Amino acid sequence: MLNYIADQWCDEQSSLVSVLCPGVMNSESVYEVVRTYNGLPFAFRKHFERLKQSAALMGLEVPFTCKELNSIIMEGLEKNKGFQTQDFRIRISLMSDGARSRPAIIFSDLPSPSKDIYELGVKISISPFLKPSADIVNPQLKMPGSSWIVRTRKALGDNYDMLILNEKGNVCEGSFSNVFLVKDGSVVTPDIRSGVLPGITRDNVIGLCESLEISVEKRPVPAWELFCAEEIFITHTSVGIVPVRRLEDKVLIEDFTDGMTRLLLDNFEGYIMTEDSNWSGLDEVEPSNYRADI
Amino acid sequence: MLNYIADQWCDEQSSLVSVLCPGVMNSESVYEVVRTYNGLPFAFRKHFERLKQSAALMGLEVPFTCKELNSIIMEGLEKNKGFQTQDFRIRISLMSDGARSRPAIIFSDLPSPSKDIYELGVKISISPFLKPSADIVNPQLKMPGSSWIVRTRKALGDNYDMLILNEKGNVCEGSFSNVFLVKDGSVVTPDIRSGVLPGITRDNVIGLCESLEISVEKRPVPAWELFCAEEIFITHTSVGIVPVRRLEDKVLIEDFTDGMTRLLLDNFEGYIMTEDSNWSGLDEVEPSNYRADI
Amino acid sequence: MLNYIADQWCDEQSSLVSVLCPGVMNSESVYEVVRTYNGLPFAFRKHFERLKQSAALMGLEVPFTCKELNSIIMEGLEKNKGFQTQDFRIRISLMSDGARSRPAIIFSDLPSPSKDIYELGVKISISPFLKPSADIVNPQLKMPGSSWIVRTRKALGDNYDMLILNEKGNVCEGSFSNVFLVKDGSVVTPDIRSGVLPGITRDNVIGLCESLEISVEKRPVPAWELFCAEEIFITHTSVGIVPVRRLEDKVLIEDFTDGMTRLLLDNFEGYIMTEDSNWSGLDEVEPSNYRADI
Amino acid sequence: MLNYIADQWCDEQSSLVSVLCPGVMNSESVYEVVRTYNGLPFAFRKHFERLKQSAALMGLEVPFTCKELNSIIMEGLEKNKGFQTQDFRIRISLMSDGARSRPAIIFSDLPSPSKDIYELGVKISISPFLKPSADIVNPQLKMPGSSWIVRTRKALGDNYDMLILNEKGNVCEGSFSNVFLVKDGSVVTPDIRSGVLPGITRDNVIGLCESLEISVEKRPVPAWELFCAEEIFITHTSVGIVPVRRLEDKVLIEDFTDGMTRLLLDNFEGYIMTEDSNWSGLDEVEPSNYRADI
Repeated sequence: MLNYIADQWCDEQSSLVSVLCPGVMNSESVYEVVRTYNGLPFAFRKHFERLKQSAALMGLEVPFTCKELNSIIMEGLEKNKGFQTQDFRIRISLMSDGARSRPAIIFSDLPSPSKDIYELGVKISISPFLKPSADIVNPQLKMPGSSWIVRTRKALGDNYDMLILNEKGNVCEGSFSNVFLVKDGSVVTPDIRSGVLPGITRDNVIGLCESLEISVEKRPVPAWELFCAEEIFITHTSVGIVPVRRLEDKVLIEDFTDGMTRLLLDNFEGYIMTEDSNWSGLDEVEPSNYRADI
Repeated sequence: MLNYIADQWCDEQSSLVSVLCPGVMNSESVYEVVRTYNGLPFAFRKHFERLKQSAALMGLEVPFTCKELNSIIMEGLEKNKGFQTQDFRIRISLMSDGARSRPAIIFSDLPSPSKDIYELGVKISISPFLKPSADIVNPQLKMPGSSWIVRTRKALGDNYDMLILNEKGNVCEGSFSNVFLVKDGSVVTPDIRSGVLPGITRDNVIGLCESLEISVEKRPVPAWELFCAEEIFITHTSVGIVPVRRLEDKVLIEDFTDGMTRLLLDNFEGYIMTEDSNWSGLDEVEPSNYRADI
Repeated sequence: MLNYIADQWCDEQSSLVSVLCPGVMNSESVYEVVRTYNGLPFAFRKHFERLKQSAALMGLEVPFTCKELNSIIMEGLEKNKGFQTQDFRIRISLMSDGARSRPAIIFSDLPSPSKDIYELGVKISISPFLKPSADIVNPQLKMPGSSWIVRTRKALGDNYDMLILNEKGNVCEGSFSNVFLVKDGSVVTPDIRSGVLPGITRDNVIGLCESLEISVEKRPVPAWELFCAEEIFITHTSVGIVPVRRLEDKVLIEDFTDGMTRLLLDNFEGYIMTEDSNWSGLDEVEPSNYRADI
Repeated sequence: MLNYIADQWCDEQSSLVSVLCPGVMNSESVYEVVRTYNGLPFAFRKHFERLKQSAALMGLEVPFTCKELNSIIMEGLEKNKGFQTQDFRIRISLMSDGARSRPAIIFSDLPSPSKDIYELGVKISISPFLKPSADIVNPQLKMPGSSWIVRTRKALGDNYDMLILNEKGNVCEGSFSNVFLVKDGSVVTPDIRSGVLPGITRDNVIGLCESLEISVEKRPVPAWELFCAEEIFITHTSVGIVPVRRLEDKVLIEDFTDGMTRLLLDNFEGYIMTEDSNWSGLDEVEPSNYRADI
């Protein structure tokens, strides 16, 4: 596919950057990953706001408005439309070249996930690598070089994802997902103060629960509580909601034909496709009204 | 200058790498910075061992022996010998390309530091950014993307360096230096368990003190203890020992014509140039006998 | 003097309790220390509310209303009025006897402090003993057996008090006092989330500052910041505001004839004697309107 | 029964102490609990050494030698021999009276535990109260007033004991027990650096495992690992080894007719009765050779 590097469209072979720039040498770089649904970037305004937040923490300028960035991406989707099987995954990086921050926008194919995932559930485990607390490393700074993520991904083995704990032994998130528990009929997920990156799919699941009048608790979740949950599911941009069958060597649930996870799975796509905040806001200068307190 | 990228010599313009590789996208990358004295790489064996340690933690192979890497660097020093004013700074990176780890060896000029630094001392402060504890992020993993370092460097202002504390409020190190206090005639420096990267200049200063029969304490150092020190100095590869005149807005010391820092400064170069472990060990398979417990 | 033990007045020799009761064996016991001004218990309602808070955390009932406890104390003040030189110090304990919580109310003399304290200031240091964070041990639970307090008091040496830090290296409080810094014309004191017991004199000093339109910051205070303060003072019930001349071996201030501490000292007694919340509220069932967010 | 208070034998009614003494007011007090087997104090030397350790941390002198204290206790056992059903529980306290530390030695009956405990196992849960880390509160200081213990005991409900975690979410111990896991054929127990009081029964179980050539791991144990254990048992002085059937609402094991816990139960009494270090050492001035590194 064609990527947008610095200020021009390049094929994969020529998507190059100088090893001398601080964006590479020091990882002075921030990023977001966006997906499309039916050819349109999903929750674009929210991703743009998170990119601005990361860039501010790293001292990088954002060299375009939300609308300008959206235009570049729409142009890329058009250029690459022959390459995808269904949807696109778009990684938007800003990298310092010393003087300025330069974009690197990378397009790739996002095939549909296997149906088995939704029907059989996946295995997850607990990562041996811990995430620094929110006091130490701001969880809103999404940059390459978070060793706990890199090292967890390399240790996945037969796990779909591994859950990363914070220094108190409370759950943060997976290496590429957020996590939810079902307990006593409520949906529980680690709160932002636990050191969680406020995932956009997580935000949509919370909104979906509220629309279904299911109570949601955002609070510290000791890792051991996972083993007392009735159900667990994880969420990430490219696949949405993923049921969990096994946690470590314990079978948590055998049958996903009903229960909370099934209910949310059945309603998820309908919710996100019609929730206005996922599709609007390109023109606004100020953040749109998505949940900040998540 | 010419740099060694993947497996060929490139001028600065062509020192490029793919933005698609994990070494850039995820910062799956480790590095060391070596300097020369009189044209010879300093403490090369020690740097090579640290590089191997980082690479092991990150799951990267090291695609050369100590001797092979040394040969590449000697070749680079020869190729670039017209460009330097006095000595070289050589950054050795290993970056994952997905399948393998590829070297990026970058040469730059290392001019002599201003004499003023040694005679007047510098100003340092305490960084607002904290370093995760050794339990959370292994301090021996030297990779790009340590946000506490990147953000501290961007906040330096009129400080020569800023000291980064750990989550207990104890001193770790500067953003590019190690720190020492003089207290009651002893030299004190944070221990490895405080989360310190075991600096090679730090190691040499400890060896120098021992050779002068000055007692050295390696232990946790609460940041407030800095303000009760008789003298403070910092150390880093490119400049060696740097006396500190001011800490935050406090003048710590006016006159560096005698005292511990002066004594160590006067003996430093003699020590490192004759200390065998800084110059030997290229052939050895096993780590040479430098201090592991530092 | 006569003390009120369980439900009767006893002289000191007969102020006894069973070693077998949980109040002694397990320290199932909470307490407050109240003083009088001009024969009247100071801030009685506030102390009573704190006692109720501690008792609730410890699972002890409070066997009297605020008014009933006040009556017992007024009776004790009358019984003991021949023994005091100026004011009284009254320690109110509740101790479990297994079945119920029993009061032990101990009266002692509170002589005027030496004028030197206010004019010359005192020496303080930093305690080697740390206080558990508010997440671990609720700082509102005032019970005997806080080892960090007991051990700090035994280590005072020539210090008036020693400041106890929390596990992050931030200042909590002294072993019997709260601490304030003056910095850039503002008054700064550790916030409740730092693990501070919300002292009643602390609360009054905050109120006094507000009445004088001096800005007050309640926030985490790294211990090293003490050394960068313009002035420091500590506060405790029996002496009020105490200026600090020396911190560790550093002379912080030589002359207390003007400055913020002097201004607050000059206005303190006037403020507390006329601040209504210090003298009212005995009849109320609900907490009176003293500052909860401190 | 008769107790030994200060320096005389008192019946329960007259086992009194002054509420004014620091031992009561500030909980300047340390203690040990010893039991007898067949009328003899068990592991007396080890308890005495722990008492000395606690007393040193609290700044209290120990007003008798091991042999002198043993004589007092033997005298008490003789005086009380008509009162017990089988064995004795003896609590030895030292309490500061301001000038000196005074003993309070309390005798009580120790009936045999119900056989059901060993055959059916017990229920345990995880306490909501955390223990400060070993850096903050020395776990070797055994004093009344550890709020995490007092509050946990009051919250037991239908649990036999509750496990207290440290600030990292790792297991320390129960409110009156130590804990062991069986995993992959090894016995695992939290290490001392986790903040564990080195229990004497714990020490004997470790010795028993070694005598049976069962491998023992002493290491940090994240609470979630309990849920992945094959078996769990807890240990305490008065009952020895107690099998755990339920952890929170999970049935861990149904049948204790074989397995590791059964093996250890079957061999425990034989081991402790013949292990020399449990019965010797009264004359020694130096610590006997029991395990310090546990």
